[in-house]
Amino acid sequence: MSDQLDRYPTRLSEPVPHIERTDPTVWAATPDPLTGGPLSGTVTSPELAGFETNGFATIPDLLTPDEVAAFGAEVGHLAADPVLYGDERVVVEPVAGQVRSVFQVHQLSKPIAELIGESRIMGLAEQILGSPVYLHQTRVNYMPGFGGSGFGWHSDFETWHAEDGMPAPRAVSLSIALTDNYPFNGSLMLMPGSHRTFVPCLGETPSGHYRESLREQRIGIPTPDDITFLAARYGITQFTGQAGSALLFDSNMMHGSSNNITPYPRSNIFMVFNSVDNALVEPFAAPQRRPEHIAARDFTPLRTDADAVLADQAR
Amino acid sequence: MSDQLDRYPTRLSEPVPHIERTDPTVWAATPDPLTGGPLSGTVTSPELAGFETNGFATIPDLLTPDEVAAFGAEVGHLAADPVLYGDERVVVEPVAGQVRSVFQVHQLSKPIAELIGESRIMGLAEQILGSPVYLHQTRVNYMPGFGGSGFGWHSDFETWHAEDGMPAPRAVSLSIALTDNYPFNGSLMLMPGSHRTFVPCLGETPSGHYRESLREQRIGIPTPDDITFLAARYGITQFTGQAGSALLFDSNMMHGSSNNITPYPRSNIFMVFNSVDNALVEPFAAPQRRPEHIAARDFTPLRTDADAVLADQAR
Repeated sequence: MSDQLDRYPTRLSEPVPHIERTDPTVWAATPDPLTGGPLSGTVTSPELAGFETNGFATIPDLLTPDEVAAFGAEVGHLAADPVLYGDERVVVEPVAGQVRSVFQVHQLSKPIAELIGESRIMGLAEQILGSPVYLHQTRVNYMPGFGGSGFGWHSDFETWHAEDGMPAPRAVSLSIALTDNYPFNGSLMLMPGSHRTFVPCLGETPSGHYRESLREQRIGIPTPDDITFLAARYGITQFTGQAGSALLFDSNMMHGSSNNITPYPRSNIFMVFNSVDNALVEPFAAPQRRPEHIAARDFTPLRTDADAVLADQAR
Repeated sequence: MSDQLDRYPTRLSEPVPHIERTDPTVWAATPDPLTGGPLSGTVTSPELAGFETNGFATIPDLLTPDEVAAFGAEVGHLAADPVLYGDERVVVEPVAGQVRSVFQVHQLSKPIAELIGESRIMGLAEQILGSPVYLHQTRVNYMPGFGGSGFGWHSDFETWHAEDGMPAPRAVSLSIALTDNYPFNGSLMLMPGSHRTFVPCLGETPSGHYRESLREQRIGIPTPDDITFLAARYGITQFTGQAGSALLFDSNMMHGSSNNITPYPRSNIFMVFNSVDNALVEPFAAPQRRPEHIAARDFTPLRTDADAVLADQAR
């Protein structure tokens, strides 16, 4: 495990108070000249207004209808690829054998890699994180109609910190919807502002925990009392919108989803951008690292010339 | 079982096509003078506009905030009444022992009985059903936050016909919300217009089926193909609104709900009005009747002088 100072202790044996975040949400390109510590930046894109306060932003038409159709076909091919079936990057429904997720899709699909590399996509992350970024994780999710079982409330950063050794919440996720998100087909619920509160969780991380936790997480989840407290403080909202819309959200956002009893499936392309200044160390609260297809350790920036973006921030 | 002509066959051993409803949705007070058969009526209240087409209507402020508070306290008392605990009318969560439903509340609570008897409540049903009405079923539902498990798509009339001997879909349900219904805390989903299609279901009704079906229904439910077809034809909408709002819906409305992982509970007072001209006979597809607290056989009209309402319709 990491011997680095742990400002976000979790997977504990005794309850401790919630931790109010001291890290910025929107990061400045350059550290505080006096202390060398992090400074808050400001977003320039109107579409990211509110990210600082809410911890997320929705981008209604990130993909055109033509792109939605093309990427819908692409992710269909990935799920049906017989060469990939059985690969550890492909998560399959235990009973029916349906593909639920394909990880590391930026290495499996050239169109998806090119999409992620476009300024309109990775530029969103650079603007929030105030630095060049790399891909911590990418995947495609396929949630069928009827019985998509949803997932409980959690913070991704809690897991990335505990099990992957991500030092600080200086990462953002972008979920691009390839199907329509209604309020009633298991669409993501968020607690606006909850990214400012870190909830230490109880319970030691078992070895190989990730295999189970990708299906149903039991360790690294807040208690009902935590959720009741956060919901009273921050409220709950939902990410809905047409196919092609996207949600950018902070790594410490508290989120979850209900089950889906409608016939309407949900598919999305999901990618996590981490700041190159926040590269992984050893896990803070797990006996071993998770595999690279879940938590990449290639910290090569997607582009080194994030200067344009950083200059934008400095204006 | 009933030997009456069965226009809505269900609980079958072989699939049969869906049945397009020939019965009216909004009933005239007097039968067709030529044939003696049922005639469609018209609603007069603006709040019920759309009932004929959609099969439901929402009434935003049926109860005042003061009434919400008073009835919230009343249903709290019912759930906590030690005299009732163990009564067959009280349905308890198997593990935690929490009260989930109390049936026949119009006999257990004077304030609820008086509320139901008010013209603003039962008048809604009389106006749709074109006749005096009686109470087929009443109950209070308590759905806690965290883990309210929702229920699958179904038509109430399918069960009332099969297991209670209700001849025709000439009944309406009124659900009065005592808590806020958000899109994400398991609020009712409806398929607008689906009341016009009767979906015969597969499988013989086991003896004593009601005990199980009140928790999770396995018999008398449509197939995923049925639901996919109906959702494509009718779409899906949701009943949301503040505490005090109400939903009036046709007995053959296809409805269901997702689970509730939020901390927000949902409670409601639920009542089913049946037309006195549609009194129960023997079950159409079940070995025995369900108990009276689930399916009343006292067909005494709530008031005999529905003349005012009927005169309204005749205008």
